[in-house]
Amino acid sequence: MADGTMLELGRKILASQPFSVLLGAELLGLAEGASELSVPIRPEFGQQHGFVHGGIVSYAADNALTFAGGSVLGTAVVTSEFKINYVRPVSGELLVARATVVHHGKRQAVCRCNVFASEDGNETPCAAAQGTIVRLSTPG
Amino acid sequence: MADGTMLELGRKILASQPFSVLLGAELLGLAEGASELSVPIRPEFGQQHGFVHGGIVSYAADNALTFAGGSVLGTAVVTSEFKINYVRPVSGELLVARATVVHHGKRQAVCRCNVFASEDGNETPCAAAQGTIVRLSTPG
Amino acid sequence: MADGTMLELGRKILASQPFSVLLGAELLGLAEGASELSVPIRPEFGQQHGFVHGGIVSYAADNALTFAGGSVLGTAVVTSEFKINYVRPVSGELLVARATVVHHGKRQAVCRCNVFASEDGNETPCAAAQGTIVRLSTPG
Amino acid sequence: MADGTMLELGRKILASQPFSVLLGAELLGLAEGASELSVPIRPEFGQQHGFVHGGIVSYAADNALTFAGGSVLGTAVVTSEFKINYVRPVSGELLVARATVVHHGKRQAVCRCNVFASEDGNETPCAAAQGTIVRLSTPG
Repeated sequence: MADGTMLELGRKILASQPFSVLLGAELLGLAEGASELSVPIRPEFGQQHGFVHGGIVSYAADNALTFAGGSVLGTAVVTSEFKINYVRPVSGELLVARATVVHHGKRQAVCRCNVFASEDGNETPCAAAQGTIVRLSTPG
Repeated sequence: MADGTMLELGRKILASQPFSVLLGAELLGLAEGASELSVPIRPEFGQQHGFVHGGIVSYAADNALTFAGGSVLGTAVVTSEFKINYVRPVSGELLVARATVVHHGKRQAVCRCNVFASEDGNETPCAAAQGTIVRLSTPG
Repeated sequence: MADGTMLELGRKILASQPFSVLLGAELLGLAEGASELSVPIRPEFGQQHGFVHGGIVSYAADNALTFAGGSVLGTAVVTSEFKINYVRPVSGELLVARATVVHHGKRQAVCRCNVFASEDGNETPCAAAQGTIVRLSTPG
Repeated sequence: MADGTMLELGRKILASQPFSVLLGAELLGLAEGASELSVPIRPEFGQQHGFVHGGIVSYAADNALTFAGGSVLGTAVVTSEFKINYVRPVSGELLVARATVVHHGKRQAVCRCNVFASEDGNETPCAAAQGTIVRLSTPG
Protein backbone atom coordinates (compact mmCIF):
# COMPACT_ATOMS: atom_id res chain seq x y z
CA MET A 1 0.00 0.00 0.00
CA ALA A 2 1.34 3.45 -0.89
CA ASP A 3 2.12 5.54 2.17
CA GLY A 4 -0.38 8.24 1.17
CA THR A 5 -3.14 5.65 0.90
CA MET A 6 -2.17 4.16 4.23
CA LEU A 7 -2.28 7.54 5.92
CA GLU A 8 -5.69 8.23 4.41
CA LEU A 9 -6.99 4.89 5.64
CA GLY A 10 -5.50 5.51 9.08
CA ARG A 11 -7.25 8.87 9.29
CA LYS A 12 -10.58 7.24 8.48
CA ILE A 13 -10.04 4.74 11.28
CA LEU A 14 -9.09 7.48 13.73
CA ALA A 15 -12.19 9.45 12.70
CA SER A 16 -14.30 6.38 13.51
CA GLN A 17 -13.03 6.30 17.12
CA PRO A 18 -15.40 8.52 19.13
CA PHE A 19 -12.84 8.91 21.93
CA SER A 20 -10.15 10.11 19.50
CA VAL A 21 -12.63 12.59 18.03
CA LEU A 22 -13.51 13.80 21.55
CA LEU A 23 -9.83 14.46 22.25
CA GLY A 24 -9.17 16.01 18.84
CA ALA A 25 -6.39 13.56 17.94
CA GLU A 26 -4.86 13.72 14.46
CA LEU A 27 -2.78 11.23 12.54
CA LEU A 28 0.19 13.22 11.21
CA GLY A 29 1.93 10.30 9.56
CA LEU A 30 1.50 6.60 8.85
CA ALA A 31 3.83 4.43 6.82
CA GLU A 32 5.00 0.83 7.01
CA GLY A 33 6.43 0.41 10.50
CA ALA A 34 5.85 3.93 11.82
CA SER A 35 3.10 6.29 12.96
CA GLU A 36 2.87 9.85 14.24
CA LEU A 37 -0.18 11.05 16.17
CA SER A 38 -0.88 14.42 17.76
CA VAL A 39 -3.33 15.73 20.34
CA PRO A 40 -3.79 19.48 20.78
CA ILE A 41 -3.47 20.27 24.49
CA ARG A 42 -6.62 21.86 25.90
CA PRO A 43 -7.23 23.21 29.43
CA GLU A 44 -9.65 20.35 30.16
CA PHE A 45 -6.83 17.82 29.64
CA GLY A 46 -5.00 18.94 32.79
CA GLN A 47 -4.33 17.35 36.14
CA GLN A 48 -4.40 19.21 39.47
CA HIS A 49 -1.03 20.97 39.02
CA GLY A 50 -1.72 22.40 35.57
CA PHE A 51 0.26 19.79 33.64
CA VAL A 52 -1.20 17.48 31.02
CA HIS A 53 -2.92 14.51 32.66
CA GLY A 54 -1.06 11.21 32.29
CA GLY A 55 -4.26 9.71 30.89
CA ILE A 56 -3.94 11.84 27.75
CA VAL A 57 -0.28 10.96 27.38
CA SER A 58 -0.98 7.23 27.70
CA TYR A 59 -3.91 7.54 25.26
CA ALA A 60 -1.55 9.12 22.70
CA ALA A 61 1.13 6.48 23.25
CA ASP A 62 -1.34 3.59 23.14
CA ASN A 63 -3.00 4.79 19.94
CA ALA A 64 0.28 5.58 18.17
CA LEU A 65 1.50 2.08 19.09
CA THR A 66 -1.68 0.55 17.65
CA PHE A 67 -1.35 2.46 14.36
CA ALA A 68 2.32 1.52 14.03
CA GLY A 69 1.43 -2.13 14.63
CA GLY A 70 -1.48 -1.91 12.22
CA SER A 71 0.84 -0.57 9.52
CA VAL A 72 2.49 -4.00 9.33
CA LEU A 73 -0.34 -6.29 10.55
CA GLY A 74 -3.41 -4.82 8.84
CA THR A 75 -6.26 -2.70 10.13
CA ALA A 76 -7.91 -5.23 12.46
CA VAL A 77 -5.53 -4.81 15.39
CA VAL A 78 -5.63 -3.87 19.06
CA THR A 79 -3.04 -3.06 21.70
CA SER A 80 -2.69 -6.19 23.82
CA GLU A 81 -0.44 -4.61 26.45
CA PHE A 82 1.99 -1.75 26.90
CA LYS A 83 4.14 -0.05 29.48
CA ILE A 84 4.82 3.62 29.73
CA ASN A 85 7.43 5.67 31.59
CA TYR A 86 6.44 9.28 32.17
CA VAL A 87 9.76 11.09 32.04
CA ARG A 88 8.56 14.60 32.87
CA PRO A 89 5.32 16.50 33.57
CA VAL A 90 4.55 18.66 30.54
CA SER A 91 2.43 21.49 29.29
CA GLY A 92 2.42 23.24 25.89
CA GLU A 93 0.33 23.34 22.75
CA LEU A 94 0.52 19.86 21.33
CA LEU A 95 1.32 16.27 22.31
CA VAL A 96 3.13 14.35 19.59
CA ALA A 97 3.50 10.56 19.82
CA ARG A 98 5.83 8.77 17.40
CA ALA A 99 5.79 4.97 17.30
CA THR A 100 7.88 2.45 15.39
CA VAL A 101 7.77 -1.31 14.98
CA VAL A 102 10.70 -3.07 16.66
CA HIS A 103 9.83 -6.57 15.47
CA HIS A 104 6.77 -8.31 14.03
CA GLY A 105 5.45 -11.63 12.81
CA LYS A 106 2.08 -12.30 11.17
CA ARG A 107 0.08 -12.13 14.37
CA GLN A 108 1.75 -9.55 16.55
CA ALA A 109 4.15 -6.62 16.55
CA VAL A 110 6.35 -5.23 19.32
CA CYS A 111 6.41 -1.45 19.03
CA ARG A 112 7.95 1.52 20.81
CA CYS A 113 6.73 5.06 21.15
CA ASN A 114 8.19 8.40 22.25
CA VAL A 115 5.83 11.16 23.33
CA PHE A 116 6.80 14.85 23.25
CA ALA A 117 5.11 18.08 24.22
CA SER A 118 5.53 20.70 21.53
CA GLU A 119 5.38 24.48 21.92
CA ASP A 120 6.46 26.99 19.27
CA GLY A 121 8.10 24.12 17.42
CA ASN A 122 10.26 23.10 20.41
CA GLU A 123 9.77 19.56 21.64
CA THR A 124 10.14 18.38 25.23
CA PRO A 125 10.37 14.62 25.94
CA CYS A 126 7.36 13.50 27.92
CA ALA A 127 7.07 9.71 27.91
CA ALA A 128 8.49 6.47 26.50
CA ALA A 129 6.34 3.41 25.85
CA GLN A 130 6.69 -0.15 24.58
CA GLY A 131 3.94 -2.65 23.83
CA THR A 132 2.46 -5.52 21.88
CA ILE A 133 -0.07 -5.05 19.07
CA VAL A 134 -2.06 -8.13 17.98
CA ARG A 135 -4.34 -8.98 15.09
CA LEU A 136 -7.97 -9.12 16.13
CA SER A 137 -8.66 -12.30 14.16
CA THR A 138 -6.80 -14.06 16.95
CA PRO A 139 -9.33 -15.67 19.28
CA GLY A 140 -8.39 -16.39 22.87
CA MET B 1 -6.13 9.88 58.70
CA ALA B 2 -9.60 8.42 59.04
CA ASP B 3 -10.74 6.64 55.89
CA GLY B 4 -13.73 8.96 55.46
CA THR B 5 -11.47 12.00 55.61
CA MET B 6 -9.08 10.43 53.14
CA LEU B 7 -11.89 9.71 50.70
CA GLU B 8 -13.14 13.27 51.01
CA LEU B 9 -9.65 14.61 50.34
CA GLY B 10 -9.24 12.26 47.40
CA ARG B 11 -12.51 13.46 45.90
CA LYS B 12 -11.33 17.07 46.15
CA ILE B 13 -8.13 16.15 44.32
CA LEU B 14 -10.06 14.30 41.61
CA ALA B 15 -12.39 17.29 41.24
CA SER B 16 -9.33 19.50 40.67
CA GLN B 17 -8.20 17.39 37.69
CA PRO B 18 -9.92 18.90 34.62
CA PHE B 19 -9.39 15.70 32.62
CA SER B 20 -11.06 13.57 35.30
CA VAL B 21 -13.98 16.01 35.37
CA LEU B 22 -14.22 15.84 31.56
CA LEU B 23 -14.48 12.05 31.76
CA GLY B 24 -16.87 12.07 34.72
CA ALA B 25 -14.62 9.92 36.94
CA GLU B 26 -15.64 9.31 40.54
CA LEU B 27 -13.66 8.08 43.50
CA LEU B 28 -15.78 5.31 45.06
CA GLY B 29 -13.33 4.42 47.80
CA LEU B 30 -9.99 5.46 49.26
CA ALA B 31 -8.34 3.98 52.32
CA GLU B 32 -4.78 3.24 53.34
CA GLY B 33 -3.36 1.05 50.62
CA ALA B 34 -6.41 0.86 48.34
CA SER B 35 -8.50 2.92 45.95
CA GLU B 36 -11.59 2.40 43.79
CA LEU B 37 -12.36 4.70 40.89
CA SER B 38 -15.21 4.57 38.38
CA VAL B 39 -15.90 6.11 34.98
CA PRO B 40 -19.41 6.00 33.51
CA ILE B 41 -19.14 4.67 29.95
CA ARG B 42 -20.44 7.16 27.39
CA PRO B 43 -20.81 6.70 23.61
CA GLU B 44 -18.00 9.18 22.97
CA PHE B 45 -15.55 6.92 24.86
CA GLY B 46 -15.67 4.23 22.15
CA GLN B 47 -13.18 2.95 19.61
CA GLN B 48 -14.09 1.97 16.04
CA HIS B 49 -15.72 -1.38 16.95
CA GLY B 50 -18.07 -0.03 19.62
CA PHE B 51 -15.98 -1.12 22.59
CA VAL B 52 -14.56 1.22 25.21
CA HIS B 53 -11.35 2.83 23.94
CA GLY B 54 -8.19 1.54 25.62
CA GLY B 55 -7.28 5.12 26.43
CA ILE B 56 -10.17 5.34 28.91
CA VAL B 57 -9.22 2.02 30.46
CA SER B 58 -5.61 3.07 30.90
CA TYR B 59 -6.71 6.45 32.29
CA ALA B 60 -8.81 4.64 34.92
CA ALA B 61 -5.98 2.24 35.80
CA ASP B 62 -3.36 4.99 35.95
CA ASN B 63 -5.48 7.24 38.16
CA ALA B 64 -6.55 4.44 40.50
CA LEU B 65 -2.87 3.46 40.86
CA THR B 66 -1.96 7.06 41.72
CA PHE B 67 -4.66 7.33 44.38
CA ALA B 68 -3.66 4.00 45.92
CA GLY B 69 -0.04 5.14 46.04
CA GLY B 70 -1.06 8.52 47.43
CA SER B 71 -2.96 6.80 50.24
CA VAL B 72 0.38 5.68 51.71
CA LEU B 73 2.76 8.37 50.38
CA GLY B 74 0.73 11.57 50.77
CA THR B 75 -1.12 13.72 48.27
CA ALA B 76 1.86 15.03 46.27
CA VAL B 77 2.38 11.98 44.09
CA VAL B 78 2.47 11.04 40.43
CA THR B 79 2.54 7.81 38.48
CA SER B 80 6.14 7.32 37.38
CA GLU B 81 5.46 4.31 35.16
CA PHE B 82 2.96 1.53 34.70
CA LYS B 83 2.14 -1.40 32.44
CA ILE B 84 -1.29 -2.58 31.49
CA ASN B 85 -2.61 -5.78 29.96
CA TYR B 86 -5.97 -5.43 28.24
CA VAL B 87 -7.57 -8.81 28.82
CA ARG B 88 -10.76 -8.28 26.85
CA PRO B 89 -12.58 -5.57 24.85
CA VAL B 90 -15.52 -4.34 26.92
CA SER B 91 -18.69 -2.34 26.80
CA GLY B 92 -21.29 -1.69 29.51
CA GLU B 93 -22.35 1.08 31.85
CA LEU B 94 -19.39 1.68 34.08
CA LEU B 95 -15.64 1.09 34.28
CA VAL B 96 -14.44 0.27 37.78
CA ALA B 97 -10.71 0.33 38.61
CA ARG B 98 -9.53 -1.10 41.94
CA ALA B 99 -5.92 -0.57 42.97
CA THR B 100 -3.90 -1.78 45.94
CA VAL B 101 -0.41 -1.13 47.23
CA VAL B 102 1.89 -4.15 46.90
CA HIS B 103 4.89 -2.57 48.63
CA HIS B 104 6.01 0.92 49.57
CA GLY B 105 8.80 2.91 51.18
CA LYS B 106 8.84 6.63 51.93
CA ARG B 107 9.43 7.72 48.37
CA GLN B 108 7.63 5.26 46.18
CA ALA B 109 4.94 2.61 46.10
CA VAL B 110 4.47 -0.36 43.78
CA CYS B 111 0.75 -0.81 43.12
CA ARG B 112 -1.53 -3.09 41.15
CA CYS B 113 -4.90 -2.44 39.62
CA ASN B 114 -7.73 -4.52 38.18
CA VAL B 115 -10.22 -2.87 35.84
CA PHE B 116 -13.73 -4.23 35.26
CA ALA B 117 -16.66 -3.24 33.07
CA SER B 118 -19.88 -3.30 35.04
CA GLU B 119 -23.42 -3.71 33.71
CA ASP B 120 -26.49 -4.42 35.83
CA GLY B 121 -24.16 -5.17 38.70
CA ASN B 122 -22.24 -7.85 36.78
CA GLU B 123 -18.54 -7.26 36.37
CA THR B 124 -16.41 -8.37 33.43
CA PRO B 125 -12.59 -8.29 33.77
CA CYS B 126 -11.15 -5.75 31.40
CA ALA B 127 -7.51 -5.01 32.27
CA ALA B 128 -4.72 -5.64 34.78
CA ALA B 129 -2.06 -3.04 35.56
CA GLN B 130 1.03 -2.61 37.72
CA GLY B 131 3.08 0.51 38.29
CA THR B 132 5.24 2.77 40.41
CA ILE B 133 3.90 5.84 42.22
CA VAL B 134 6.45 8.40 43.45
CA ARG B 135 6.38 11.41 45.73
CA LEU B 136 6.62 14.66 43.81
CA SER B 137 9.10 16.20 46.21
CA THR B 138 11.67 13.99 44.55
CA PRO B 139 13.71 16.03 42.08
CA GLY B 140 15.48 14.29 39.24
CA MET C 1 -5.66 -33.18 35.66
CA ALA C 2 -5.22 -33.91 39.36
CA ASP C 3 -3.00 -31.37 41.09
CA GLY C 4 -0.48 -34.01 42.13
CA THR C 5 -0.14 -35.18 38.54
CA MET C 6 0.22 -31.60 37.34
CA LEU C 7 2.98 -30.92 39.86
CA GLU C 8 4.80 -34.10 38.81
CA LEU C 9 4.57 -33.09 35.16
CA GLY C 10 5.76 -29.57 35.99
CA ARG C 11 8.77 -30.96 37.82
CA LYS C 12 9.69 -33.05 34.78
CA ILE C 13 9.53 -29.95 32.60
CA LEU C 14 11.64 -27.96 35.05
CA ALA C 15 14.18 -30.81 35.16
CA SER C 16 14.41 -30.64 31.35
CA GLN C 17 15.46 -26.96 31.46
CA PRO C 18 19.26 -26.96 31.76
CA PHE C 19 19.27 -23.37 33.05
CA SER C 20 16.82 -24.21 35.85
CA VAL C 21 18.97 -27.22 36.78
CA LEU C 22 22.07 -24.99 36.80
CA LEU C 23 20.34 -22.62 39.24
CA GLY C 24 18.91 -25.41 41.39
CA ALA C 25 15.29 -24.25 40.96
CA GLU C 26 12.50 -26.37 42.41
CA LEU C 27 8.79 -26.39 41.72
CA LEU C 28 7.13 -26.35 45.16
CA GLY C 29 3.57 -26.26 43.89
CA LEU C 30 1.54 -26.33 40.69
CA ALA C 31 -2.23 -26.38 40.44
CA GLU C 32 -4.78 -24.91 38.06
CA GLY C 33 -4.07 -21.19 38.00
CA ALA C 34 -1.13 -21.09 40.41
CA SER C 35 2.52 -22.02 40.73
CA GLU C 36 5.23 -21.77 43.37
CA LEU C 37 8.91 -21.97 42.45
CA SER C 38 11.97 -21.68 44.65
CA VAL C 39 15.68 -21.07 44.07
CA PRO C 40 18.18 -21.67 46.87
CA ILE C 41 20.36 -18.56 47.18
CA ARG C 42 24.05 -19.35 46.58
CA PRO C 43 27.03 -17.01 46.89
CA GLU C 44 27.56 -17.09 43.12
CA PHE C 45 24.10 -15.57 42.60
CA GLY C 46 25.14 -12.21 44.06
CA GLN C 47 25.68 -8.76 42.64
CA GLN C 48 28.49 -6.42 43.69
CA HIS C 49 26.92 -5.37 47.02
CA GLY C 50 26.26 -8.88 48.33
CA PHE C 51 22.56 -8.93 47.48
CA VAL C 52 20.92 -11.42 45.15
CA HIS C 53 21.40 -10.38 41.52
CA GLY C 54 18.25 -9.08 39.83
CA GLY C 55 18.84 -11.61 37.07
CA ILE C 56 18.03 -14.48 39.45
CA VAL C 57 14.95 -12.70 40.74
CA SER C 58 13.66 -12.07 37.22
CA TYR C 59 14.44 -15.68 36.25
CA ALA C 60 12.33 -16.90 39.18
CA ALA C 61 9.47 -14.52 38.36
CA ASP C 62 9.54 -15.35 34.65
CA ASN C 63 9.57 -19.10 35.21
CA ALA C 64 6.85 -19.02 37.88
CA LEU C 65 4.71 -16.93 35.49
CA THR C 66 5.24 -19.49 32.73
CA PHE C 67 4.25 -22.42 34.95
CA ALA C 68 1.14 -20.60 36.20
CA GLY C 69 0.14 -19.85 32.60
CA GLY C 70 0.90 -23.43 31.57
CA SER C 71 -1.39 -24.74 34.31
CA VAL C 72 -4.38 -23.36 32.36
CA LEU C 73 -3.04 -23.36 28.77
CA GLY C 74 -1.16 -26.66 28.56
CA THR C 75 2.52 -27.49 28.64
CA ALA C 76 3.56 -25.92 25.32
CA VAL C 77 3.79 -22.33 26.52
CA VAL C 78 6.31 -19.51 26.72
CA THR C 79 6.43 -16.14 28.41
CA SER C 80 5.72 -13.58 25.71
CA GLU C 81 6.45 -10.52 27.84
CA PHE C 82 6.57 -9.46 31.46
CA LYS C 83 7.43 -6.50 33.65
CA ILE C 84 9.02 -6.67 37.06
CA ASN C 85 9.36 -4.15 39.88
CA TYR C 86 12.20 -4.88 42.28
CA VAL C 87 10.88 -3.62 45.59
CA ARG C 88 13.94 -4.23 47.74
CA PRO C 89 17.45 -5.71 47.49
CA VAL C 90 17.46 -9.05 49.28
CA SER C 91 19.67 -11.74 50.67
CA GLY C 92 18.77 -14.92 52.58
CA GLU C 93 18.51 -18.65 52.00
CA LEU C 94 15.81 -19.04 49.40
CA LEU C 95 13.95 -17.11 46.75
CA VAL C 96 10.28 -18.07 46.50
CA ALA C 97 8.18 -16.94 43.51
CA ARG C 98 4.40 -17.38 43.61
CA ALA C 99 2.40 -16.76 40.47
CA THR C 100 -1.33 -16.76 39.76
CA VAL C 101 -3.43 -16.43 36.64
CA VAL C 102 -5.40 -13.17 36.50
CA HIS C 103 -7.27 -13.92 33.29
CA HIS C 104 -6.93 -16.36 30.42
CA GLY C 105 -8.45 -17.44 27.12
CA LYS C 106 -7.43 -20.40 24.96
CA ARG C 107 -4.30 -18.82 23.59
CA GLN C 108 -2.90 -16.65 26.32
CA ALA C 109 -2.94 -15.97 30.05
CA VAL C 110 -2.20 -12.80 31.98
CA CYS C 111 -0.42 -13.74 35.21
CA ARG C 112 1.05 -12.04 38.25
CA CYS C 113 3.90 -13.07 40.49
CA ASN C 114 5.26 -12.06 43.90
CA VAL C 115 8.84 -12.93 44.78
CA PHE C 116 10.07 -13.22 48.36
CA ALA C 117 13.40 -13.90 50.01
CA SER C 118 13.04 -16.43 52.78
CA GLU C 119 15.31 -16.93 55.80
CA ASP C 120 14.47 -19.04 58.83
CA GLY C 121 10.91 -19.17 57.58
CA ASN C 122 10.56 -15.37 57.48
CA GLU C 123 9.70 -13.92 54.10
CA THR C 124 10.76 -10.49 52.81
CA PRO C 125 9.03 -9.07 49.71
CA CYS C 126 11.51 -8.77 46.89
CA ALA C 127 9.73 -8.18 43.58
CA ALA C 128 6.34 -8.00 41.86
CA ALA C 129 5.82 -9.06 38.25
CA GLN C 130 3.06 -9.24 35.65
CA GLY C 131 3.17 -10.80 32.21
CA THR C 132 1.61 -12.63 29.29
CA ILE C 133 2.01 -16.39 28.73
CA VAL C 134 1.16 -17.71 25.26
CA ARG C 135 0.64 -21.14 23.73
CA LEU C 136 3.54 -22.15 21.52
CA SER C 137 1.33 -23.53 18.77
CA THR C 138 0.70 -19.90 17.86
CA PRO C 139 2.83 -19.01 14.85
CA GLY C 140 3.76 -15.41 14.23
CA MET D 1 35.09 10.49 32.26
CA ALA D 2 36.83 9.25 29.11
CA ASP D 3 34.98 6.38 27.46
CA GLY D 4 37.96 4.03 27.86
CA THR D 5 38.12 4.73 31.57
CA MET D 6 34.39 4.24 31.91
CA LEU D 7 34.55 0.88 30.15
CA GLU D 8 37.42 -0.21 32.40
CA LEU D 9 35.44 0.79 35.49
CA GLY D 10 32.34 -0.97 34.18
CA ARG D 11 34.33 -4.17 33.63
CA LYS D 12 35.56 -4.04 37.22
CA ILE D 13 31.99 -3.73 38.45
CA LEU D 14 30.85 -6.61 36.25
CA ALA D 15 33.75 -8.72 37.55
CA SER D 16 32.55 -8.03 41.10
CA GLN D 17 29.10 -9.51 40.38
CA PRO D 18 29.37 -13.24 41.14
CA PHE D 19 26.28 -14.02 39.04
CA SER D 20 27.73 -12.24 35.99
CA VAL D 21 30.97 -14.18 36.46
CA LEU D 22 28.99 -17.44 36.72
CA LEU D 23 27.29 -16.67 33.39
CA GLY D 24 30.48 -15.47 31.70
CA ALA D 25 29.08 -12.04 30.83
CA GLU D 26 31.37 -9.45 29.25
CA LEU D 27 31.00 -5.71 28.87
CA LEU D 28 31.81 -4.98 25.22
CA GLY D 29 31.20 -1.26 25.40
CA LEU D 30 30.30 1.49 27.86
CA ALA D 31 30.09 5.20 27.07
CA GLU D 32 27.90 8.05 28.23
CA GLY D 33 24.35 6.94 27.56
CA ALA D 34 25.05 3.50 26.08
CA SER D 35 26.23 0.02 27.02
CA GLU D 36 26.83 -3.26 25.23
CA LEU D 37 26.98 -6.55 27.12
CA SER D 38 27.45 -10.08 25.86
CA VAL D 39 26.89 -13.58 27.25
CA PRO D 40 28.36 -16.60 25.47
CA ILE D 41 25.57 -19.16 25.01
CA ARG D 42 26.36 -22.45 26.74
CA PRO D 43 24.32 -25.69 26.71
CA GLU D 44 23.42 -25.23 30.37
CA PHE D 45 21.63 -21.98 29.54
CA GLY D 46 18.86 -23.75 27.64
CA GLN D 47 15.18 -24.33 28.23
CA GLN D 48 13.36 -27.58 27.44
CA HIS D 49 13.18 -27.02 23.66
CA GLY D 50 16.87 -26.29 23.15
CA PHE D 51 16.51 -22.51 22.93
CA VAL D 52 18.19 -20.06 25.28
CA HIS D 53 16.22 -19.74 28.52
CA GLY D 54 14.36 -16.45 28.92
CA GLY D 55 16.06 -16.02 32.27
CA ILE D 56 19.42 -15.48 30.54
CA VAL D 57 17.90 -13.06 28.06
CA SER D 58 16.27 -11.01 30.82
CA TYR D 59 19.52 -11.09 32.84
CA ALA D 60 21.38 -9.65 29.83
CA ALA D 61 18.72 -6.97 29.23
CA ASP D 62 18.51 -6.02 32.92
CA ASN D 63 22.27 -5.73 33.33
CA ALA D 64 22.78 -3.79 30.09
CA LEU D 65 20.01 -1.39 31.21
CA THR D 66 21.75 -0.90 34.56
CA PHE D 67 25.12 -0.15 32.95
CA ALA D 68 23.56 2.31 30.50
CA GLY D 69 21.81 4.08 33.38
CA GLY D 70 24.99 4.03 35.44
CA SER D 71 26.88 5.71 32.60
CA VAL D 72 24.88 8.89 33.26
CA LEU D 73 23.98 8.49 36.95
CA GLY D 74 27.19 7.15 38.49
CA THR D 75 28.19 3.69 39.61
CA ALA D 76 25.83 3.33 42.59
CA VAL D 77 22.73 2.38 40.64
CA VAL D 78 20.21 -0.45 40.43
CA THR D 79 17.42 -1.39 38.07
CA SER D 80 14.19 -0.34 39.74
CA GLU D 81 11.86 -1.95 37.21
CA PHE D 82 11.84 -3.10 33.61
CA LYS D 83 9.63 -4.81 31.06
CA ILE D 84 10.80 -7.17 28.37
CA ASN D 85 9.18 -8.51 25.21
CA TYR D 86 10.67 -11.75 23.94
CA VAL D 87 10.29 -11.45 20.19
CA ARG D 88 11.61 -14.86 19.18
CA PRO D 89 13.15 -17.99 20.75
CA VAL D 90 16.85 -18.04 19.90
CA SER D 91 19.93 -20.19 19.87
CA GLY D 92 23.44 -19.40 18.66
CA GLU D 93 26.86 -18.56 20.03
CA LEU D 94 26.39 -15.28 21.81
CA LEU D 95 23.72 -13.04 23.31
CA VAL D 96 24.39 -9.35 22.78
CA ALA D 97 22.39 -6.72 24.70
CA ARG D 98 22.64 -3.06 23.68
CA ALA D 99 21.09 -0.43 25.91
CA THR D 100 20.70 3.33 25.56
CA VAL D 101 19.43 6.09 27.81
CA VAL D 102 16.16 7.61 26.59
CA HIS D 103 15.91 10.30 29.25
CA HIS D 104 17.50 10.98 32.62
CA GLY D 105 17.56 13.39 35.54
CA LYS D 106 19.87 13.30 38.56
CA ARG D 107 18.14 10.45 40.30
CA GLN D 108 16.87 8.15 37.60
CA ALA D 109 17.23 7.19 33.96
CA VAL D 110 14.74 5.60 31.56
CA CYS D 111 16.62 3.22 29.29
CA ARG D 112 15.88 0.84 26.44
CA CYS D 113 17.64 -2.33 25.38
CA ASN D 114 17.66 -4.59 22.33
CA VAL D 115 18.91 -8.16 22.71
CA PHE D 116 20.21 -10.20 19.79
CA ALA D 117 21.51 -13.74 19.32
CA SER D 118 24.67 -13.76 17.26
CA GLU D 119 26.08 -16.62 15.21
CA ASP D 120 28.89 -16.33 12.66
CA GLY D 121 28.49 -12.58 12.89
CA ASN D 122 24.78 -12.66 11.96
CA GLU D 123 22.43 -11.18 14.52
CA THR D 124 18.86 -12.29 15.15
CA PRO D 125 16.55 -10.04 17.21
CA CYS D 126 15.62 -11.76 20.44
CA ALA D 127 14.07 -9.29 22.88
CA ALA D 128 13.25 -5.63 23.51
CA ALA D 129 13.26 -4.10 27.00
CA GLN D 130 12.58 -0.78 28.70
CA GLY D 131 13.16 0.16 32.32
CA THR D 132 14.05 2.60 35.06
CA ILE D 133 17.51 2.80 36.63
CA VAL D 134 17.81 4.65 39.95
CA ARG D 135 20.65 5.94 42.08
CA LEU D 136 21.16 3.83 45.18
CA SER D 137 21.61 6.81 47.45
CA THR D 138 17.83 7.17 47.22
CA PRO D 139 16.26 5.78 50.38
CA GLY D 140 12.66 4.68 50.30
